[in-house]
Amino acid sequence: MSYDRLIAYLEESDHLQSAVRLLQWDQETGMPSGGQEARAEVLSTLAGLSHQRATSPHLRELLEFAESEAKTPDRIRQLELVRRDLDRASKVPASLVERLAKATSTAQQVWSKARQERDFQRFRPHLEEVVALKREEGALLAPSGGSAYDGLLSDYEPLMRTADWSILFGELERELPNLAREIHERQGRVRERLARLEALRGPFPRERQLHLCRGLAESLGYDFSRGRLDLSPHPFSETIHRGDSRITTRIDESDLVSSVFATLHETGHALYEQGLPEDLSGTPLGGFCSMSVHESQSRLWENLVGRSDAFWHDRWSRVREDLPVLSEVRVEDWTARSRLVRPSLIRTESDEVTYNLHVLVRFRLEQALVDGNLAVSELPSAWNEAYRKMLDTVPSHDGEGVLQDVHWSAGMFGYFPTYTLGNLLSAQFFRAAADQGATGNLPALLTWLRQKVHARGHMLETPELAFQATGRKPSASDFLAHLRERYLG
Amino acid sequence: MSYDRLIAYLEESDHLQSAVRLLQWDQETGMPSGGQEARAEVLSTLAGLSHQRATSPHLRELLEFAESEAKTPDRIRQLELVRRDLDRASKVPASLVERLAKATSTAQQVWSKARQERDFQRFRPHLEEVVALKREEGALLAPSGGSAYDGLLSDYEPLMRTADWSILFGELERELPNLAREIHERQGRVRERLARLEALRGPFPRERQLHLCRGLAESLGYDFSRGRLDLSPHPFSETIHRGDSRITTRIDESDLVSSVFATLHETGHALYEQGLPEDLSGTPLGGFCSMSVHESQSRLWENLVGRSDAFWHDRWSRVREDLPVLSEVRVEDWTARSRLVRPSLIRTESDEVTYNLHVLVRFRLEQALVDGNLAVSELPSAWNEAYRKMLDTVPSHDGEGVLQDVHWSAGMFGYFPTYTLGNLLSAQFFRAAADQGATGNLPALLTWLRQKVHARGHMLETPELAFQATGRKPSASDFLAHLRERYLG
Repeated sequence: MSYDRLIAYLEESDHLQSAVRLLQWDQETGMPSGGQEARAEVLSTLAGLSHQRATSPHLRELLEFAESEAKTPDRIRQLELVRRDLDRASKVPASLVERLAKATSTAQQVWSKARQERDFQRFRPHLEEVVALKREEGALLAPSGGSAYDGLLSDYEPLMRTADWSILFGELERELPNLAREIHERQGRVRERLARLEALRGPFPRERQLHLCRGLAESLGYDFSRGRLDLSPHPFSETIHRGDSRITTRIDESDLVSSVFATLHETGHALYEQGLPEDLSGTPLGGFCSMSVHESQSRLWENLVGRSDAFWHDRWSRVREDLPVLSEVRVEDWTARSRLVRPSLIRTESDEVTYNLHVLVRFRLEQALVDGNLAVSELPSAWNEAYRKMLDTVPSHDGEGVLQDVHWSAGMFGYFPTYTLGNLLSAQFFRAAADQGATGNLPALLTWLRQKVHARGHMLETPELAFQATGRKPSASDFLAHLRERYLG
Repeated sequence: MSYDRLIAYLEESDHLQSAVRLLQWDQETGMPSGGQEARAEVLSTLAGLSHQRATSPHLRELLEFAESEAKTPDRIRQLELVRRDLDRASKVPASLVERLAKATSTAQQVWSKARQERDFQRFRPHLEEVVALKREEGALLAPSGGSAYDGLLSDYEPLMRTADWSILFGELERELPNLAREIHERQGRVRERLARLEALRGPFPRERQLHLCRGLAESLGYDFSRGRLDLSPHPFSETIHRGDSRITTRIDESDLVSSVFATLHETGHALYEQGLPEDLSGTPLGGFCSMSVHESQSRLWENLVGRSDAFWHDRWSRVREDLPVLSEVRVEDWTARSRLVRPSLIRTESDEVTYNLHVLVRFRLEQALVDGNLAVSELPSAWNEAYRKMLDTVPSHDGEGVLQDVHWSAGMFGYFPTYTLGNLLSAQFFRAAADQGATGNLPALLTWLRQKVHARGHMLETPELAFQATGRKPSASDFLAHLRERYLG
């Protein structure tokens, strides 16, 4: 009974969050520009109300009553998750939360202009303030004996510490730079052939691309009666509430790769959301496991499935019918195009081989910033040096260098590593599914993921979930094997 | 200072309402069907939070502090409006609010099915319950010496009682039935000619109609940087928050009139919203004056402007370029089509002459229901008899008769009359603008309305606003004069 009252309270809190998510989705997809200022005010009020509910004495009371009752394993886990959120909220005093909210709000605005103007100096004092505050927060959240950066990492992966991450990244650092160089060399002739293929530069009319993207999402198993596809400058997926998990993509009329792989990526996220246990929706246990696992789902469909020959073989004739400009392009050219590996400056546009080098750079730098081993003033040169070493390329200005990501300005230290863990897990899940004979067709693969990952909600943490689904703890080995097989096999 | 604190509280309450409005807009325009159940839960939670805020002791305290301070006329009016809302909320006990919410929620669902199945008996017990509860509520809200129906009317027009409405409707009852018959007779030949004009039945492609509707809204002065146009089954306008006032229309590929006049109507509503005083937005004083005045704005642009020859004269050649199927249709045919008057059964599809007869029927019947002079069981036959007498036509089943409107199932007794007052005021405002030389072009007309109506927010009640803008209290005379001039002149 008191458990049910707690759940009702949590569901109501999630209803408020549903409104926030719709307000944000709308802001990115179609809100008239004149509504910006008022929209920010509305979002700020709702964030305040949500925060009040998440930290209220009433919630603590409900939780304590529920904890004192007899319990099933599901309920024990549910209460553990609620307790963790509440304890986290109690560890960080309201004054720090407020200072952080204010500092990151300003820093994001300044960052946006600084990036445009390629002017790191303008951003520097704001980043310094954010780093100082996050260091303070990290120290409060740190597990016993852990560093401030451990504290920040624990927000995203509570079972993993800096040392665990360092092992993963260490393996990648040993393998990836050489692997990328070797592949880049091997692809020399393909690159030249593709460069001569005018048809790969379109034009691909907007409506046709949208039609193609809808079909692709549907063929992966995305349920349009519980979702929709729209356009936005930065593709994203957003679940408003159960029965409504949306995706967006972007259209570049001269580059079909852009919309297609953004769609596959966001569809992967949304398939996870559509597969979460509906009867637990709106509660922590009914939510996704972690950002890492979320990213593993998007990357699995985008890279493991979407950049494979098998995926395109049967559907290429239909794509060419819809986009006659491609009539002379062979399916081999298209898949080769989707698998080009090259040194790049921008993380979000990089290939699946070099992507994690971009993340590695950020992991090392943010750790050094939070630990106090790197001053913000030294960050741009440290960034450029790391890119030279890891990616054989150096930004010509900070706009395509240290200023390219929004994360740090938003106070998201400890978040980048989850991208890499997601990439590693995508290969690990796919390998396990293949070993269990579940990769022969898309519905079989989705069924496997539904069962092993989606339907479990937040019953387990990432390493446990990976272990139960694949028989192994998260590691880089399946990912590296996948790259070698695909690119050097 | 305490005034500012009150305003901040009210603005925050409005932020919650912004979320509700976006959730509703989204539900009508594009939400995936699978989200329905969860969306209803989200809306219900937010309605509860809003209600808590609107009736909280904290609000009362803030208001009392503010009332005790020195004041300007604006502030006095602001506090008067807040006080009125709060007193209204205090007059109706929470238990009645809850019973009403529950009864109307069920009644609306049953009504929707009963209408489809043309089965009034199924709806009857639910309507009986709603009428009984509204009678109870009306008695609590009634001004001293007034009836329960007076109480319900006061929710929409606090300065007008049943007797005032009866005078307006009495005049319409004396004039309109005969006027409608006379016009219908006169239009016999036009009707025949138009019936032979195949081109008026399209097809009018969806995208072309949307393009035309966008252009029309823009030409009226609608600011698309602070709004957007979408499609929905039932056209509506909705302001999310300042800087974001949206409209929708519907498309029938065989009938251009449908989308065009729905667009002009909703644009009229949105122009009012876009013209409200921005610095007061989110407070009662910054809101619209009344539903009646809102309807006067939509009807003014739809009927007074949109069904005139002058409006179409200059733009017809462009319409024909966009819709080549109309190439043989003269502008006179189109405007004649937009002004056809005929007996009809469905209020929302009726012409500007007979429209108020539909409302008159509802006014008389709902008054009798609430006063206890008509039993719900007798309603269908009373409805059919009234239609025979007023509109020379009788529904062949209750689906196109007494079950056509959602209002009563939703507990909206006292709302229908505001449609008619809006119609009367549309002509009264237009007449005054013409007398002051402001109807020569659309921008001049909008400027006049901005100044005399929109910018005033809720400073005045409807009769006072009409008097200050036109020099006369609301009456039927300008409206009847307009009909005679347009249709018999």
